[in-house]
Amino acid sequence: MAGKNRQILLAAYPVGMPKENDFRLVETDMPTARDGEFLVRINYLSVDPYLRGIIRGRRTGEGSVEIGQLMPGRAVGTIVESKKRGYGAGKTVAGEWGWQEYAVSDGKDVRKVDTSVAPMPAWLGVLGMPGVTAYFGLLEIGKPKKGESVFVSGAAGAVGSTVGQIAKIKGCRAAGSAGSNEKVEWLTKELGFDAAFNYHEAGDLAAKVAEVAPGGVDLYYDNVGGPVTDAVFTKLRTGARVVICGQIDQYNAEDVPQGPRLLWRLLVKRARAQGFMVFQFGKRWNEAIAQISKWLKSGKLKHRESIVEGLENAPKAFIGLFEGRNIGKQVVKVAGEE
Amino acid sequence: MAGKNRQILLAAYPVGMPKENDFRLVETDMPTARDGEFLVRINYLSVDPYLRGIIRGRRTGEGSVEIGQLMPGRAVGTIVESKKRGYGAGKTVAGEWGWQEYAVSDGKDVRKVDTSVAPMPAWLGVLGMPGVTAYFGLLEIGKPKKGESVFVSGAAGAVGSTVGQIAKIKGCRAAGSAGSNEKVEWLTKELGFDAAFNYHEAGDLAAKVAEVAPGGVDLYYDNVGGPVTDAVFTKLRTGARVVICGQIDQYNAEDVPQGPRLLWRLLVKRARAQGFMVFQFGKRWNEAIAQISKWLKSGKLKHRESIVEGLENAPKAFIGLFEGRNIGKQVVKVAGEE
Repeated sequence: MAGKNRQILLAAYPVGMPKENDFRLVETDMPTARDGEFLVRINYLSVDPYLRGIIRGRRTGEGSVEIGQLMPGRAVGTIVESKKRGYGAGKTVAGEWGWQEYAVSDGKDVRKVDTSVAPMPAWLGVLGMPGVTAYFGLLEIGKPKKGESVFVSGAAGAVGSTVGQIAKIKGCRAAGSAGSNEKVEWLTKELGFDAAFNYHEAGDLAAKVAEVAPGGVDLYYDNVGGPVTDAVFTKLRTGARVVICGQIDQYNAEDVPQGPRLLWRLLVKRARAQGFMVFQFGKRWNEAIAQISKWLKSGKLKHRESIVEGLENAPKAFIGLFEGRNIGKQVVKVAGEE
Repeated sequence: MAGKNRQILLAAYPVGMPKENDFRLVETDMPTARDGEFLVRINYLSVDPYLRGIIRGRRTGEGSVEIGQLMPGRAVGTIVESKKRGYGAGKTVAGEWGWQEYAVSDGKDVRKVDTSVAPMPAWLGVLGMPGVTAYFGLLEIGKPKKGESVFVSGAAGAVGSTVGQIAKIKGCRAAGSAGSNEKVEWLTKELGFDAAFNYHEAGDLAAKVAEVAPGGVDLYYDNVGGPVTDAVFTKLRTGARVVICGQIDQYNAEDVPQGPRLLWRLLVKRARAQGFMVFQFGKRWNEAIAQISKWLKSGKLKHRESIVEGLENAPKAFIGLFEGRNIGKQVVKVAGEE
């Protein structure tokens, strides 16, 4: 196809909080699909906290990004030219295509997008990696039982907001923490959380956790780490499970963050803390999408996206994740719906 | 029965490291067995690190000891007078009888002691609570797989020394840390640990863990917490399990101990940390004793006790646990074998 592509590359390894000039917008040639490939025009792309861990400039193994390389990320796109069977032009698909306007794909890790279930941006959120993460993290790692008390940190994020709602669907009590009063209102008035608090204004965090989760916490779904987690650990009930999904509080730390020692609390409460990554459940992806789609159609599950306009604003959207600017899933509109 | 009993009571809530005058020896009347009870003369009694947690003077719930109360602890004793069927005079039994010379029991939580398997002190160690703790903690919480790398902190203690040997029996590599060169020698030359180090002389603990557990740690059995645990967490392998059995490093702390945040390491390694207490497996106690007895008879499992003489020296023996004076199980000889 004629024309140019635009991409955002890593320009410098961020130190602490990422800055806009750690990234660089470049114009490149339009990529070309060869046999068995297709060219996709990106409609929306996803920025996610985990990216912070792979742009550190340390050999962290698989997936780390070097200076001058394309910023990675999942995206929803429309096929504009295809030399691959089953991927006809006009189809909407999602894949790992990075921060750019056009990409070529051989179909690897590409998933179908059905916009009759929900609009494109939702396929990067509740129907994408964050939704599937929430689904398996809560149900398979956390194993909630009806009537249990679930607490979610980062509750207004793409993962957290889904976790709390699934907890309610499963008959649990759901409480959580978020970073603004607007978020708290959304959680409790629209999503059906039983209670939530704004950790910036909470004062004594442990007391606040006790207030929103009376009797303690059976299942803690942790997206954040840091002081909120320290507080929740003081309120774990016997036999509690802690699902460690994210630790965004620490992603910008340059030194090893210090805090109260927490393992003895697992001991006295005979509790379990478990880290996981969604790709562990990759083979069961469709199972999660099918269930989430049902819940969306029946109105049991709600979703929300914060949309920043324009590829050039992807760095700003990414930085915003660490400032808590997003409510629900943070998405960047590139071509948008055509 | 005529005569007097002697007991050790809690005299003061210890601040930091317990001192001998936090305890008090008193002479009391000989207790009397009523119908359905028996009188037992204590041969050996056990002092255990977990007691530190229940003499803090804070309402920590069940099991906490108030000033003036008898210090609790399991003991092996000989029945001297019985008004209970099946518990004839002369029988050797183990029970929760506290730091004293004589006790009355109704048979609750009393277990048979078979001195043809091992002498009395072993029934407070490898055939008692520590051995059963090692057995279920390693096998049921840690779930070791053949060929995996197991690391044990507090490896020369009653629990740790058993854990490492069972790991070897199960086809794992076993490494550990202990507090003296004498202990390290015992672990590697007599018990069959593949490697061990003296953490007092280790210098860079993380480097030392890497040295004794090349390739990292699949299963960490933690009796200690603190800096050794911090080091092991840096060497966890993907899918690692951390069994939190004890955190003796922190038991004397008055303030909440601080340290590097560790949960994100569970996240990146998709690892699990789980606290447990042996009474969770109370119904399966005999299963563990039967298996441990077999291993003892076949020579696959070795045990050792550090024996302090005289009830009056129980406080010293208890304090010694936190100074690392014991090798294997710390036991106090009261009447001894009669």
